[in-house]
Amino acid sequence: MVDIASRVYNHKWKIDPIVRSLIDTDFYKLLMCQSVFRNHRDANVTFSLINRSKKVRLADIIDEGELREQLDHMRSLSLSRGESTWLRGNMFYGKRQMFRSDFMEWFEGLRLPPYHLEKRDGQYELTFEGTWPEVMLWEVPALAILVELRSRAVMSDMGRFELQVLYARAMTKVWEKVEELRPVENLRIADFGTRRRHSFLWQDWCVQAMQEGLAQKFVGTSNCLIAMRREVEAIGTNAHELPMVYSALAETDKELRVAPYKVLEDWQEEHEGNLRIILPDTYGTSSFLRQAPDWLASWTGIRIDSGDPETGAETAIQWWKDRGEDPREKLVIFSDGLDVAKIKELSAKFAGRVRVSFGWGTLLTNDFRGLVADDGLAPFSLVCKAVEANGKPTVKLSDNPNKAMGPLDEIERYKRVFDIGAQQKFDVIV
Amino acid sequence: MVDIASRVYNHKWKIDPIVRSLIDTDFYKLLMCQSVFRNHRDANVTFSLINRSKKVRLADIIDEGELREQLDHMRSLSLSRGESTWLRGNMFYGKRQMFRSDFMEWFEGLRLPPYHLEKRDGQYELTFEGTWPEVMLWEVPALAILVELRSRAVMSDMGRFELQVLYARAMTKVWEKVEELRPVENLRIADFGTRRRHSFLWQDWCVQAMQEGLAQKFVGTSNCLIAMRREVEAIGTNAHELPMVYSALAETDKELRVAPYKVLEDWQEEHEGNLRIILPDTYGTSSFLRQAPDWLASWTGIRIDSGDPETGAETAIQWWKDRGEDPREKLVIFSDGLDVAKIKELSAKFAGRVRVSFGWGTLLTNDFRGLVADDGLAPFSLVCKAVEANGKPTVKLSDNPNKAMGPLDEIERYKRVFDIGAQQKFDVIV
Repeated sequence: MVDIASRVYNHKWKIDPIVRSLIDTDFYKLLMCQSVFRNHRDANVTFSLINRSKKVRLADIIDEGELREQLDHMRSLSLSRGESTWLRGNMFYGKRQMFRSDFMEWFEGLRLPPYHLEKRDGQYELTFEGTWPEVMLWEVPALAILVELRSRAVMSDMGRFELQVLYARAMTKVWEKVEELRPVENLRIADFGTRRRHSFLWQDWCVQAMQEGLAQKFVGTSNCLIAMRREVEAIGTNAHELPMVYSALAETDKELRVAPYKVLEDWQEEHEGNLRIILPDTYGTSSFLRQAPDWLASWTGIRIDSGDPETGAETAIQWWKDRGEDPREKLVIFSDGLDVAKIKELSAKFAGRVRVSFGWGTLLTNDFRGLVADDGLAPFSLVCKAVEANGKPTVKLSDNPNKAMGPLDEIERYKRVFDIGAQQKFDVIV
Repeated sequence: MVDIASRVYNHKWKIDPIVRSLIDTDFYKLLMCQSVFRNHRDANVTFSLINRSKKVRLADIIDEGELREQLDHMRSLSLSRGESTWLRGNMFYGKRQMFRSDFMEWFEGLRLPPYHLEKRDGQYELTFEGTWPEVMLWEVPALAILVELRSRAVMSDMGRFELQVLYARAMTKVWEKVEELRPVENLRIADFGTRRRHSFLWQDWCVQAMQEGLAQKFVGTSNCLIAMRREVEAIGTNAHELPMVYSALAETDKELRVAPYKVLEDWQEEHEGNLRIILPDTYGTSSFLRQAPDWLASWTGIRIDSGDPETGAETAIQWWKDRGEDPREKLVIFSDGLDVAKIKELSAKFAGRVRVSFGWGTLLTNDFRGLVADDGLAPFSLVCKAVEANGKPTVKLSDNPNKAMGPLDEIERYKRVFDIGAQQKFDVIV
């Protein structure tokens, strides 16, 4: 039987929105948002889209009108009653009332701030400006919208069966990955693929495939909406934007030098246990750990998000040993450009030496490589970053110079302040 | 949105029938049924299930109660008004009113006759007895029921995602076949896969995939229900049961010798053009053609359903030449154990020498080889044959002794009467 109601509902749903909820976003955004709301709610921040894959000419592929419709729709969204209830009442990382009442009241009244969109050289210049807690919530949906509009554009002239077979092939691919991961001992893996997912429905499917295929080894998803609907754990801690904006807000070199640690001081006041995860690579992992205050060694873990992951983990293990900590009680979270082979390799490499967890992103939720002509659905490296705070540019150095960003003179200043030596370049996968 | 009505409908549909319509059968059964209704309506015939794949122990795999429910359901079916309208009014092979009024009135009142079911040595002994026109309609649904019950049994302990991925893999497989066939020049191919299909929904999917992927090269389906619903041509002519039963009914060796030609004499009275297709292999192709009356050379084509297909086609071409016919105006239909490689090879081999058409069966609608453990969904060679007519056994010799059937002494008598020499054995694929 045809479900007439569904069809009509889909037809009249004006622009067939890509993001249909304010919590169709990464959990760590909400944790960070609450922290920012508490500590820097009036900072004025600008986010900007950056397409690292220049050969994917987004402005040629995606219609500007459609993009505006999706972005406008995003601005019409507000937190629903059920979403609010879930955020207020659900247990996250073993804790109830993770989100404080003052934050929830603010969030319930939130609408996303305006966007600014222009075409230039086959790319979209897309920026968002506003107070930090509101504007930061643009990042994930903006990326998801652009990535899915590109998927839709590429698929727009495919036939009904061609489409069905495309998804059949993609499903087979994901399932083969799941089957390959199933025997990995002590595996702990989460979906981190919201921002660069092929589509919402596809991410939702991938999460269900992981649930069924990996059972307890699948520890949750970064996507709050999917976590709520599928009753799995919402996963995530914090990201580069915190040290980047804290650093941009620093008035002097001295303030700059301690800014990345100030982020974690603020974080420590709110969170404990598995939420105390250090992201050390914003201005170089080695330098960050070398100059870190002692109290940081007691934190639960370190997330490795750039550079060679094995080197990053070895650096972390050595640092814990140097500070008198037992690495076997610590947690290393890998989250950069992962796919099955790398996950298996890292699992085997660090078994018994440190607890390991994986945040699997783009190559879980958007591995359509090789499935259409000219590889038009292959994932690409799109980011949306805080580029300015209270009028001052942000800087990221990363453990991979190919992921560095900011004005050149500021990059030099940061390298000096944070005492960064030579760095090795790595290709950015996704 | 959940389609509650569909769900409830499926729940209450008592036994979830495998065959839901009397016309969910092969078109040629209806053509033959009309011919039999006209010429031998009172002959008493017995059909019997024969599982050539002894290692597939059907009685261990399929629950007897479930099998009885499906067979009982089959007996509750009668022709619906829409089905009757379609059979009466649709154009088949370019002709309206293919089915005469007296036949349609009989068909509208038809219920299938009883069945007899026993278990023996891990197999089901399943027989049907009745007047020829009614009992012959058991063959295709009986096979479809057994094959699908086996699929269901094998899939019964699979998880929701495992199932989805199973079908994703199977779809990918079918689509890759379609893509490989697309460039074959002058291809004419039909679905002949009803009897050994994985399931009804799967056959329906395969037909749609062929429609979209092969366009005009896909000439239709043998399945009347799918042909009606998808508005494609219903395809098929006649089968071995006609010469087998005509021969069993023959009273003397002299009558036996002409029985296979009498079948075609009767057929010729009703059909012309592309329905005048000779199936010459029941008692050996060479012998059949050598002794054939001259008027048969004017028929449109020959269907090759056993033995080496290339040899069969060469024999046909030579026979047409010997009888003064131009093979380039003739049609050879291949329908035995086909898959893509063989279809491509035969297409290339006979291009320009004879018109060629393919009836693609089991490896279109049931190629689940290699998709589950122990290859539990691989197709197997199940047939349901007329074994007796008015108390006398039927015999089939075929161009492949592995497909021969009947009592040994009768086989010897037939070999003598039809003057069959040595035959080469071939593995039966499906």
